[in-house]
Amino acid sequence: MGGGTGVFNTLMALKNYSLDLTAIVSIADDGGSSGVLREEFGILPPGDIRRALVALAPESAKSLTELFNYRFENGSGLKGHSFGNLFITALTEISKDFNKAIDDAGKILNIKGRVIPVSLAQCRLIAELQNGMFVFGETNIDIPKNKEKNIAIKKIFLNTDVKANPKAIQEIMKADYIIVGPGDLYTSIVPNFLIAGVKTAFQKSKAKKIYISNIVTKFSETNGFKAIDFLKILEKYICKNCFNHIVLNDYKTIPKRLIDIYRRERKQPVKFTKDDFKNYRKLNIIVEDLTRKNTLLRHDTKKLGEVLWKIINND
Amino acid sequence: MGGGTGVFNTLMALKNYSLDLTAIVSIADDGGSSGVLREEFGILPPGDIRRALVALAPESAKSLTELFNYRFENGSGLKGHSFGNLFITALTEISKDFNKAIDDAGKILNIKGRVIPVSLAQCRLIAELQNGMFVFGETNIDIPKNKEKNIAIKKIFLNTDVKANPKAIQEIMKADYIIVGPGDLYTSIVPNFLIAGVKTAFQKSKAKKIYISNIVTKFSETNGFKAIDFLKILEKYICKNCFNHIVLNDYKTIPKRLIDIYRRERKQPVKFTKDDFKNYRKLNIIVEDLTRKNTLLRHDTKKLGEVLWKIINND
Repeated sequence: MGGGTGVFNTLMALKNYSLDLTAIVSIADDGGSSGVLREEFGILPPGDIRRALVALAPESAKSLTELFNYRFENGSGLKGHSFGNLFITALTEISKDFNKAIDDAGKILNIKGRVIPVSLAQCRLIAELQNGMFVFGETNIDIPKNKEKNIAIKKIFLNTDVKANPKAIQEIMKADYIIVGPGDLYTSIVPNFLIAGVKTAFQKSKAKKIYISNIVTKFSETNGFKAIDFLKILEKYICKNCFNHIVLNDYKTIPKRLIDIYRRERKQPVKFTKDDFKNYRKLNIIVEDLTRKNTLLRHDTKKLGEVLWKIINND
Repeated sequence: MGGGTGVFNTLMALKNYSLDLTAIVSIADDGGSSGVLREEFGILPPGDIRRALVALAPESAKSLTELFNYRFENGSGLKGHSFGNLFITALTEISKDFNKAIDDAGKILNIKGRVIPVSLAQCRLIAELQNGMFVFGETNIDIPKNKEKNIAIKKIFLNTDVKANPKAIQEIMKADYIIVGPGDLYTSIVPNFLIAGVKTAFQKSKAKKIYISNIVTKFSETNGFKAIDFLKILEKYICKNCFNHIVLNDYKTIPKRLIDIYRRERKQPVKFTKDDFKNYRKLNIIVEDLTRKNTLLRHDTKKLGEVLWKIINND
């Protein structure tokens, strides 16, 4: 469960294992190509769904997934649109059914598993900041207009009550494992649990719950956060002690040159001490070096897959 | 060989027979979605290629072909674009190779046979009218702005010399049968033979040549034409006596109500008498009732397929 590139990475980590995978993705996105299509066609934002579909497509569909990720660079009306987003939009317009459109796209891409939007209803994200101001829309929260100000988020909520996609609830209830994250805490992860029924289903589900912590913080959303801070916010929006496992990146292995690069974007490695979790006696804490060691601090999908597979096999 | 919906119909007629099919399609189209993409991306117009690809896709790819033919009805920049055209445009932008893009699209659609644009170079069609005026561009010739005037076309030519696609020449040379038409004479059929090398290859090829006559005339292009007039124009642009077979629709079987409907668009059934062809002793003339009997006067693909299959088996 999640949104953005986090879902993509987790699915890539797991797709080569013998697992029945379901991606439940956020529908809060309202920027870029997705935002335009949302506005002009009234469809749900297809971006996160597209990424999840591509992650679950087989290697043999490479030319098709490359096409899905292609973004038009020319054309008065096409520039900036991701082809995959147009693909999902066209399928939705034909079938007038977003679930069916995603199913059809999945069949065409021959994906392993399924991709399910957490809700089929339109809604927008609103953040209340610590200074009492409100920010409307996922993009404005994600990329604040006034970069200088760093006012922490106090609370996040939806502009309207929306029902969960029944298929999402079904999958949550019958899952053996539910993996949350990685991803932007307030704009990709928490929005899933703001949808009516999702939190309760998550609590009721007998699935073991795994939280994959982010590798770096994000300015304006989780500035200065330690791993325990992420967990506490999640608990506030879901439930106390509801995770069985937390997967942390061993931040000490991050090369200094990468820390320096990220510092310029005002992002820091997500740190933790053993002591932070002293009140979480039942939480299984896994610490591993999980990063790729190139120019981006992202989860290495091979390493992440191995850790997750180990958790599943040891349970 | 052809363009527009004519190619689609001929391919649909033949796709269920055990034949190795190649569609060679015109690149003269410059209207609508194709025209915009041609202008903004500098790619070849994808419309006719899209129709040919869809014709050659298997029944099982129905949802994909439906998607290919879908035209966006909303969106400031998307309205009017055919999804298949965007598909071909995106593939071309990725591979920077129009031939490869069409091959890739063919693989994704799992088509039987191949689709080949007659040239990979950009060119535009110019018509010289009988009154000495010139009309620039396929769309302006196809749909003349001044519908009241009915000035016949004297000559059609390209604005620039362009080379043929080597793959098109190859296929023409090795074909057993070359089928020309049906389709708009000046805007879909003849443009193929204006490309340097195509006419010569057609003449040299040992293939048997079949011309499928149109069912109705078209105002501004072939107003008042009989079948023999179509043939003579073709001969002017290709070569004298180069067809072995001509397939004519038995115009006497067209219901009066359909004739009336078409008369309003100033279209008449393409007529003929035996006498018209008295100078074509070697031409095999096939006359059959070939139309669908619904509201459109189009070739019935089943009937057309049977006639073509019979020609091939009797040769």
